[in-house]
Amino acid sequence: MERTDVLVVGGSAAGVVAATTAKATYPDKRVVLIRKDELSLVPCGIPYVFGSLDSTAKNLMPNDALAKAGVELRIAEVVSIDQEAKTCHTAQGEEFAFDKLVIATGSEPVVPPWLPGTDLAGVYTIPKNKAYIDRALESLRNCRAVVTIGGGFIGVEMSDELNKQGTEVTLVEILPHILGLAFDEEIAVLAQDILQTRGVNVKTGAGVKAITGEGRATGVLLDNGQEVPTEAVVLSVGYRPAAGLAAESGIELNERGSIKVDEYMRTQNPDIFAVGDCAEKRDFTTRKLSSVMLASTATSEARVAGMNLYRLSAVKTFSGTIAIWSTGLGEHGFGCAGLTERAAREEGFDVVTGMFEGIDKHPGTLPGAHKQLVKLVAASDSGVILGGQVAGGPSAGELTNLIGLAIQNRMVANSLVTAQIGTHPLLTAPPTAYPVIKAAEQVLRKMSA
Amino acid sequence: MERTDVLVVGGSAAGVVAATTAKATYPDKRVVLIRKDELSLVPCGIPYVFGSLDSTAKNLMPNDALAKAGVELRIAEVVSIDQEAKTCHTAQGEEFAFDKLVIATGSEPVVPPWLPGTDLAGVYTIPKNKAYIDRALESLRNCRAVVTIGGGFIGVEMSDELNKQGTEVTLVEILPHILGLAFDEEIAVLAQDILQTRGVNVKTGAGVKAITGEGRATGVLLDNGQEVPTEAVVLSVGYRPAAGLAAESGIELNERGSIKVDEYMRTQNPDIFAVGDCAEKRDFTTRKLSSVMLASTATSEARVAGMNLYRLSAVKTFSGTIAIWSTGLGEHGFGCAGLTERAAREEGFDVVTGMFEGIDKHPGTLPGAHKQLVKLVAASDSGVILGGQVAGGPSAGELTNLIGLAIQNRMVANSLVTAQIGTHPLLTAPPTAYPVIKAAEQVLRKMSA
Repeated sequence: MERTDVLVVGGSAAGVVAATTAKATYPDKRVVLIRKDELSLVPCGIPYVFGSLDSTAKNLMPNDALAKAGVELRIAEVVSIDQEAKTCHTAQGEEFAFDKLVIATGSEPVVPPWLPGTDLAGVYTIPKNKAYIDRALESLRNCRAVVTIGGGFIGVEMSDELNKQGTEVTLVEILPHILGLAFDEEIAVLAQDILQTRGVNVKTGAGVKAITGEGRATGVLLDNGQEVPTEAVVLSVGYRPAAGLAAESGIELNERGSIKVDEYMRTQNPDIFAVGDCAEKRDFTTRKLSSVMLASTATSEARVAGMNLYRLSAVKTFSGTIAIWSTGLGEHGFGCAGLTERAAREEGFDVVTGMFEGIDKHPGTLPGAHKQLVKLVAASDSGVILGGQVAGGPSAGELTNLIGLAIQNRMVANSLVTAQIGTHPLLTAPPTAYPVIKAAEQVLRKMSA
Repeated sequence: MERTDVLVVGGSAAGVVAATTAKATYPDKRVVLIRKDELSLVPCGIPYVFGSLDSTAKNLMPNDALAKAGVELRIAEVVSIDQEAKTCHTAQGEEFAFDKLVIATGSEPVVPPWLPGTDLAGVYTIPKNKAYIDRALESLRNCRAVVTIGGGFIGVEMSDELNKQGTEVTLVEILPHILGLAFDEEIAVLAQDILQTRGVNVKTGAGVKAITGEGRATGVLLDNGQEVPTEAVVLSVGYRPAAGLAAESGIELNERGSIKVDEYMRTQNPDIFAVGDCAEKRDFTTRKLSSVMLASTATSEARVAGMNLYRLSAVKTFSGTIAIWSTGLGEHGFGCAGLTERAAREEGFDVVTGMFEGIDKHPGTLPGAHKQLVKLVAASDSGVILGGQVAGGPSAGELTNLIGLAIQNRMVANSLVTAQIGTHPLLTAPPTAYPVIKAAEQVLRKMSA
């Protein structure tokens, strides 16, 4: 039996950050991280393995970062947790005793049980597993045509990357637009246009009835009866929390199958924490259960857990999860933070919106200038910013983070309008027409109308 | 005599935004903007005229934006303001009666009176004047060698752009590093290295004794006795408020020659506002007079003035000026917001700093990934963020704005550490090592040490 102070189960983004933060905060404690695989992929980089990077070797989490941080790595699969004895057992027969345990077992791709043909050869999901991704890459790079099912971020990024390396890609999405949950329609159509211009065939409003083929997938049958011929299928219709280990060990899950945690990521057992995709989240604005799964959210939770393992000291000054997403299509960047207008209205918020399209360099005659569109969603009476969406160039990711910070600070439209920003010809929109401020002006004007 | 409700004097960024905001806020009011020149340059774009854009025609403020906003443009030079009669007179003999006046007369380049040779042919400053810049461009594009005096943003950008289009450029700066007021040493040296690598000769710690030549500048004589031969000189050693019109009309200036204004940009005459480089500023943190001149600051003031001309309604939720600057050198981006460590210590702040170098895409094997370095400066006892500096790629400008927003919200290091951000392989640093958060972690750790 190996004894450690802190034991972290799971070695993707959340586990690594929980472990390194724990060691940095409590340098006298021994911190051990256990994961199944010797090598672990950078999770958000996985779609890029299929095009820009062309191998998983270029997308590995650096193991030496753990060693440098003083975290010990063990390769094993934890199969049970004994809460009473404070021990974990592995499939390899080892036993680990812990003082504090962090569960960071992540998520796994959903395979719809009602969909025929998912067991055919040539049908791939996108799990965070190097060996599986290596096999998928080997197979997909030899296909002339691939159908991707699901137009969320992973489906869109996979489609763009496969298309980029020469594969004929058809993306099938049941909603009216790709990225239809992340963005309001006017932004989603921009992303869809760009994806199509880049050469991906996009079929929206199209449900899938079956993956067809004998032994091997050769087609995707749509609800409308059309069959799209293909050589392989990438299925990316969502992820579910990988909480089986926790559940089997008596740790309480919520009705969505996520591990129940408090504000400081503690399960009902105060010595056991859960972070990342396997842990419960509540929305920042609505406080309802949220199914957001993002590495950035996971690492934020992991930092909170790692710092607060032995005493609550790093006080969370923001409660709840603000989904802050971004994605890139070539030189185009898209992002959203907080609630979309549609989500806000569905929740019952009376909202006003502001939208402004400018440019991300100035003057717009500078080489490499992109359009930059910002939409803000604010509560009608107070002007509190509930969400924002960005369509622009390479700075769209950080601009989305700026909006995310405004939301976290409960900023109102008036504060954004009078806010100070810095601008530069090569790096930002012009000071006269900075889209976040111009959109906030519109919100303000509608509020006083 | 022409009667208007709102009269704006000056048509650069501040004047344009004051006028368009006034018209948008008070659609029933007549808004007239007077400026000297038919065509007005995008101020921050001026250095780029000398390289990337290659003509002032590509760097014009769009006049049709004024017309579209319902603002009337008059080309004339205002030479006096009669506060009693509420009128302005122009050099062309016209008279304008106003109800509310906004002075946005900007700034002009400083020419040190003690420096011999500034009146030689071939010596140029960088004013916001199209005709002058056209002449300078015509002359400088034919020079094989140019000396730029002053290593602030304008001097650095001018040097890089002239170098880019093939001129041999020597930049002379009296401080130990270029951008030495905007950045702490460790960031300034990075910018200096890049500028040198791009081919600019940089002489720092070098004062200038005289510009030499007979009729025409042929050299720059340094304090150390060295004479740098040249065909032309660009002098960019600072700007002073263009407040002569205001002063001669009895409007009160402060001891730095800026027009005194209150929190809502009103001069001591409540019907006369002043905004932009000619208007007084106080630092956000120290409340001392500040000499910052930035188009982004100017437009922020202009919005406040334009909205509040007839009634105070848009309440400033941030008081004082946070200098938020950014600049680009090729694909490298640099930015700073708030106080540098040096400035904070000089003011008497007991500070702790955190600095982290990561990458601006992830994994770092992705094409186009840059190093991204963030330094945060925080008050020792409270952790309140006083300033931040960024050296990275094209997203450095918006990342600096994110730090600026954190400062404006009086965020503390703990709030940044537990903050949520969004990350994406093509657009941002990895979630495991987002430099703003890692730098904040260091601040927190030093605070509790």
